[in-house]
Amino acid sequence: MKQIAIVGLGIIGGSFAKALANRLPGRYKVSAIDINQDTLDEAKKLGFIEKGETTNKSILQNADIVIIALYPNLVTEFVVTHQEDFKEGALIVETSGIKKSIMQELLPLIPEQVEFIFGHPMAGRESQGFAFADDRVFLHANYVITPSDKNKAASIEFFSQLLKDLGFGRITISSPKTHDLMIAYTSQLTHLIAAALINSDSTGQNTVEFIGDSFRELTRIAKMNEKLWSELMLNNREPLLEVIESFEKQLANLKQAILTNDKEALEQEFIHSTQKRLALESADQAHEFAKERGK
Amino acid sequence: MKQIAIVGLGIIGGSFAKALANRLPGRYKVSAIDINQDTLDEAKKLGFIEKGETTNKSILQNADIVIIALYPNLVTEFVVTHQEDFKEGALIVETSGIKKSIMQELLPLIPEQVEFIFGHPMAGRESQGFAFADDRVFLHANYVITPSDKNKAASIEFFSQLLKDLGFGRITISSPKTHDLMIAYTSQLTHLIAAALINSDSTGQNTVEFIGDSFRELTRIAKMNEKLWSELMLNNREPLLEVIESFEKQLANLKQAILTNDKEALEQEFIHSTQKRLALESADQAHEFAKERGK
Repeated sequence: MKQIAIVGLGIIGGSFAKALANRLPGRYKVSAIDINQDTLDEAKKLGFIEKGETTNKSILQNADIVIIALYPNLVTEFVVTHQEDFKEGALIVETSGIKKSIMQELLPLIPEQVEFIFGHPMAGRESQGFAFADDRVFLHANYVITPSDKNKAASIEFFSQLLKDLGFGRITISSPKTHDLMIAYTSQLTHLIAAALINSDSTGQNTVEFIGDSFRELTRIAKMNEKLWSELMLNNREPLLEVIESFEKQLANLKQAILTNDKEALEQEFIHSTQKRLALESADQAHEFAKERGK
Repeated sequence: MKQIAIVGLGIIGGSFAKALANRLPGRYKVSAIDINQDTLDEAKKLGFIEKGETTNKSILQNADIVIIALYPNLVTEFVVTHQEDFKEGALIVETSGIKKSIMQELLPLIPEQVEFIFGHPMAGRESQGFAFADDRVFLHANYVITPSDKNKAASIEFFSQLLKDLGFGRITISSPKTHDLMIAYTSQLTHLIAAALINSDSTGQNTVEFIGDSFRELTRIAKMNEKLWSELMLNNREPLLEVIESFEKQLANLKQAILTNDKEALEQEFIHSTQKRLALESADQAHEFAKERGK
């Protein structure tokens, strides 16, 4: 039986472990490396992994597929430290939320005997750790693969199929540069907006009495892992600053229409936003499945 | 049996009709006035109202409670046109999303024989019309009542109990000024942000391939009724401009931290936003019931 090693049993690694156990029972032997022994014990007790090690002893040597789900800044060190330990012909999956910087750093260091697949599961939870890992977040979710020139087409195809078997919806092939720009817009900017919105509460009132679901939804992701998000954003500054400015301009347009009492301009902006949202919904098969993802 | 008249069977009026039928069957005789005969026919066929009129003939004359759920700019005209038609001692409920301007306008015009309760159900849908009305949106939701000096305590108490019977969670008594500031922040600003976010997409890419649930959630309300929202916002310009600027400042702080590569500042902002969101969640009993509201 082929073996899969998961490195880091947080939200992403933990969700992979749970998805493998729940959706592909018996297909792989799954092990995990995590610095927290309690997490490993828990994952083993619940039947999500067969074996756990706090530092690699024999897991990497036996793994046909390694899924690395560490903080981005820890990935390179992990690979360099363990370059002799990877099994000949292993597929190493790297999952961090930015791609250009990590690929530039890692590509020259990849051990000869393995193949790396860089990519990003567009799925998560606002809470951290194995207890909050949940394979439902993968259901119909997007996954972006950013191939390098060292990838074999067959490996990308094999891994794409595995992702679909684990519940993912759309698998997109992208350049790292495009990925990073898009993620700056769809994910990093949205987190900045949520933080700015909740931090801007200067009303001095008991805000909770005056909220509806729009405020609840727009601030859900204001609860975030500050270390991870700072790292992701500061490794992606150029595209992030670009999309922040683009957003600021649009908000300034709306503000100007309000300032000048320009009803027609305001209505036009809202007609435009409505059209864009409707277009997004009709293109987004995952839209209908938010509840299945527990959102 | 006491009679309730609903004026305007859109999202709010329609949801009141459905909540009355589903949660308090047989307690009131419910009628409706709506300009659309098809909507009235549909509501009657589905058993949500007993009687419908496209312009008032006898409904207001018999109604002990009138729930006005029209666009804010239509409320005053409706009241003035029908000032002779309201039943002696009737309770008139006005539900629009801003309070100061409408109360200033309406208070001098309220007919002697009736009592107005101004307020705002903090519940809605991003789609419009009776077909999308859904009494689940009221479940555990907030309702803000902004009393005038003409209100009797007993009437406010009676109406608050009716709201709880219809599913609302927290009923808050507020001044119109505070209400309008808070709603500028929690509801109008959030809609502006959603519109600005989706309108700022200048990536030229197929955005849908790169989205996760945070982008899906933050743009849900970018689909909006442009006429209603423009009206609400332009009648609430001063507090709205204030909260936009407050938000812009917070976003500028975050941008500055990214520009200067200031990890510590960025982390502090995210710790702050996380704390604020956690505090909100623990104070918000409605938080847990988003799914029951179909959100």
